[in-house]
Formats: sequence, C-alpha cells, structure tokens
Amino acid sequence: MVRYGDFRFLVDCGEGTQRQILLSGLGFRNLNKILLTHGHLDHILGVAGLLSTIIRWESIEDIDLYGGRDTIERVSDLVTRIVCRGTRVPASIHFHVIEKGGTLIETADFRLSCFPVLHRGTDSFGYRFERKSRRPFLPERAEALSIPPGPWRRELAAGKSVTLPDGRRIDGEDVLGAEIPGTVLTVVGDCGDPRPLCASVAGSDALVIEATYLEEDAAMAKKYSHMTARMSAQLAKDGNVGRLILTHVSRRYRDRDILREAAAVFPNTVVARDLDSFHIPDRPEDAEG
Amino acid sequence: MVRYGDFRFLVDCGEGTQRQILLSGLGFRNLNKILLTHGHLDHILGVAGLLSTIIRWESIEDIDLYGGRDTIERVSDLVTRIVCRGTRVPASIHFHVIEKGGTLIETADFRLSCFPVLHRGTDSFGYRFERKSRRPFLPERAEALSIPPGPWRRELAAGKSVTLPDGRRIDGEDVLGAEIPGTVLTVVGDCGDPRPLCASVAGSDALVIEATYLEEDAAMAKKYSHMTARMSAQLAKDGNVGRLILTHVSRRYRDRDILREAAAVFPNTVVARDLDSFHIPDRPEDAEG
Repeated sequence: MVRYGDFRFLVDCGEGTQRQILLSGLGFRNLNKILLTHGHLDHILGVAGLLSTIIRWESIEDIDLYGGRDTIERVSDLVTRIVCRGTRVPASIHFHVIEKGGTLIETADFRLSCFPVLHRGTDSFGYRFERKSRRPFLPERAEALSIPPGPWRRELAAGKSVTLPDGRRIDGEDVLGAEIPGTVLTVVGDCGDPRPLCASVAGSDALVIEATYLEEDAAMAKKYSHMTARMSAQLAKDGNVGRLILTHVSRRYRDRDILREAAAVFPNTVVARDLDSFHIPDRPEDAEG
Repeated sequence: MVRYGDFRFLVDCGEGTQRQILLSGLGFRNLNKILLTHGHLDHILGVAGLLSTIIRWESIEDIDLYGGRDTIERVSDLVTRIVCRGTRVPASIHFHVIEKGGTLIETADFRLSCFPVLHRGTDSFGYRFERKSRRPFLPERAEALSIPPGPWRRELAAGKSVTLPDGRRIDGEDVLGAEIPGTVLTVVGDCGDPRPLCASVAGSDALVIEATYLEEDAAMAKKYSHMTARMSAQLAKDGNVGRLILTHVSRRYRDRDILREAAAVFPNTVVARDLDSFHIPDRPEDAEG
C-alpha cells in the first residue's frame, strides 16, 4: 500500500491481500485505487477476495483498477465470472486500461504516472508516485509585509499576485521560500530486463523492485524473466536513486543473502518483509537523517 | 487439512490457503484431495493459488476436487478461465460432481462419505471421515497356536480362514481380539439449518462445524443462513458427538464468548484457531484421556 495525503493505493493484489490488510491494521477505508503491474496470478488473485468483501458492504465507494490491457482483461474476468458470477458487476468498480506510459492522476501537489516494464509475456507497467516540488509559504514574511488574514494568503501561497485592500500589490515571490524538491517513489513489479527502466526510475527517492534471485542463479532469473539482487542494485546505482527496497524474493533464499549481494553494489538497500512500513521523507529532511 | 494414514484432504480452500500450508509446515506433498462444502468465494478462492502453484511444478500428481454441481462449476470456471487462461487444464486435475450423499472413497480400513447440508442458495455437502471398526490381530494367540510366519497371518488378520502346511484349519476368529469401534470425524462447512444434520453427525468422535454468530444475533444468523454457537452445541449434544470443534467465527466476536455460549450446552467444545491441530484418538484410547 502506498499512502500520500488522502490517497491510498494498492500496488498489485496477490492472494491473501485482504487478510494482510487486516493484520496490518491499515483498514480498507479509502483504499480505492488498485494499480496492477501485470496479470500474473500471484499479483492479481487477491482482487477477488478484496472486492467480494467490499461488494458485500451496504454502500461502496468508487474503486478504480489500473493495468495493461491483458492485465485488466484477466482481472475483469476474475471479477465478472468468479466474484460477481450471475450478478451484475457494481457500477462503482471501474477498470482502466493503460495503453502507454504517462500521467494517470494529477492534483496540485501530486502526480501518479506509469511507465512500461518488460516481463515475460505481459504488458507490465511500473508506477511513479510524485509529491511535486513546491515553495513553502513563509508566515513571517507575510507578517513583515502586514498582509491581513483572508483569501490573499491562500492566493500568495499558490504563487499568485494579489492586490490588498490597502492597494498594495504583492507578488507570491515575496512570501515564498526556496523551492523544496519533489519526492518520488517508484514501484516496479516483476521485471526481466532493467535496461529500459533506468530513465524511469532515475532520481527516485526510493525504488521498490523485485529481486527474485541471487546472481549465482542468473540463468534462472533470465529464463523466468526476473531480476537478481545485483541487477536491481545496479539499476538503483545507475539511476542514482535514494533508497532501494527489494521485494519478491524467492523462497529458496534467505533475505540476508539477497541483501548482502545488493548492498555490495548499492549500500542503501533493504529487503522488505511482510507488513514492513517505510516513510519516504522530503529531501530537506533527508539531510537531518 | 484432514490426515489419515497416507490420505491428506483439504476441506474447503479459502483465499490464502497455500500460504497457511506453508506456515503450518505441513507441505503440499500428497495433498491431492480437495473436498469443497460449497461454492461461496471464501471457501474456494484459494484453489486458484494452490493449483497455480502446483501446476508450475515439473511433474504433478493427480488432484481430485469434490463438491456439489454448482460448487464444481464455479471452481472449474476459476481453474479454466483464470488459472489456466488460454492453456489447457492439466489432465491430472479431476473435478468430481457430488450428486447426493454417500461413499466417495473406501479402502479396507477407511471410508470417506458425504451428506447434504442446507446453506443459503448452495448445494452444500458435509464430509464424514471414518476409520472403520476393526479387530486387532493378537500375535500371542498366533504364537500359542504355533502358526508359522508367512502369508497365513495376513489372511487371518483379515478375518479369513486358512489351512496351515501341517493340515490344521485355523479361523480368523481364533487370533482376532475384540472389535475396536471405528473413529469418525465429521466436518460441516456453513450451515443454515442443523435439523437435517442430526443423523449425519450422530455418534461422531469429533464434529467440526461453523459458529458464525452468538445467540444474541440469532436473527442475523437466520438471515445469512449461519449457525449460532448455541445451535452448533445443541447439534453436538443431540448427535451425542465426542468433541465439538467450532470454526468460522465472525470477526465481531471474541472466541471466548463463542466458547462460553457453546460450552454451556456442550462442555467438550473448542474454538479452532488458525493452524491449530487436533488428534482424534481411537475410542479405547479415549478412556485413557
């Protein structure tokens, strides 16, 4: 689950997701956007249980599912033929087919976009969550300029110019601090070839990506179109990302072996475990640790 | 999971079952018989993940799924349209439609049978696992009769008569102890009306059945076609069962409240928690505790 402000996104929804949500204590409220990286069963089966639970509620809010064409076809089949078998799919469930990379959702301070990913026989996409760069409103500057309370401060905070009741014209520039760079989290699902990804993940504050195999099993990684820990670490290094969060580790390995291999290339790496929680801080806070 | 000898049965397969099997350490080996009580999603969704995992193995053994007609249609759709989408369902996966109660599997010492259960709009079945009554072979009697080692002892153990090399005719009766009664475990899934069940569960050493609600919510139990703890306890009492194991408790209750209500009617009750394990002993061992 990715949270920003009131947004709550689920990136992929494997079997048992609703149970994990219960265990996590995060709850289902506002969890109304499901972003699917691809249509392999271990990334979509949980949609059936999650939606069947939600549909049983007395009132359900809109739920948006995003994915490539094949992914959405498969999930739509799951919902139509299995979950809602013999009944109409509620009108509040919306399937969105992603045709190509680009912006999916945008608000004044936030942007969700997607980019294509290569993974065996799928139309995979990765997702980029961006808190936009911004200039903070400086109340002490507004005080110094004797700007009265009222709508003017909101306009100025948005960078606009205003004319005050006393006739003075104030520019946003006068009350805004230096630009705080945006914060970017990039989430990639399964991936067989990281080369086209470098530009998409470049400069992310955090990158979540799979590391199914160790380099010693690189042949298997290639065969099944997955990443080794070293490949993912190299991508993080090449893309100059802030932090690398690895997932999707094959049960044949211990997390610490995956971590050791990745950290040798890219030290700021963690292997995420079930129910782990990570905070991606704004850049200026980074300096404070 | 119900185990007897080499048999391993899964009774229902809700979302996340394969994960729970991993957690339990029981493994997937020989887990090749899936008995479905009915087709509601919370009892069948796990079939998708479990079979998709098993199908990926290099060689898979035969897997048999049993259930009523609607149940099997729904599960078959799940396997055909979702799990095996665009590919052929492996010939080793067998769907068995149960038309009516009766014996499903029988060996010399074991019998699996099923019986109809009433639950809202489903063709539900319960399952009865029976270790047959038997008469133990008494080696000391065989010694006293100077029966030589060889095939004769096996024949006698099966209750047959044999003619020994020395011409004596020995009857099974001469070397078999008193009959040890069979052991019966009965498993019922969701149930809205216990009345027709009494004969089916009568005399079971253990009965596993749902207790979704407390009696204070009996109206809701009736509306959704479920049992209250007291209803299940009364069934256990009327059916003179040995032990009552309650499952499927609504998240609105604490287990101990369900237990208190049931135990007031039928003291030998437990509320099963995830990964609990129960041994149903043979009757003579019961006396030893």
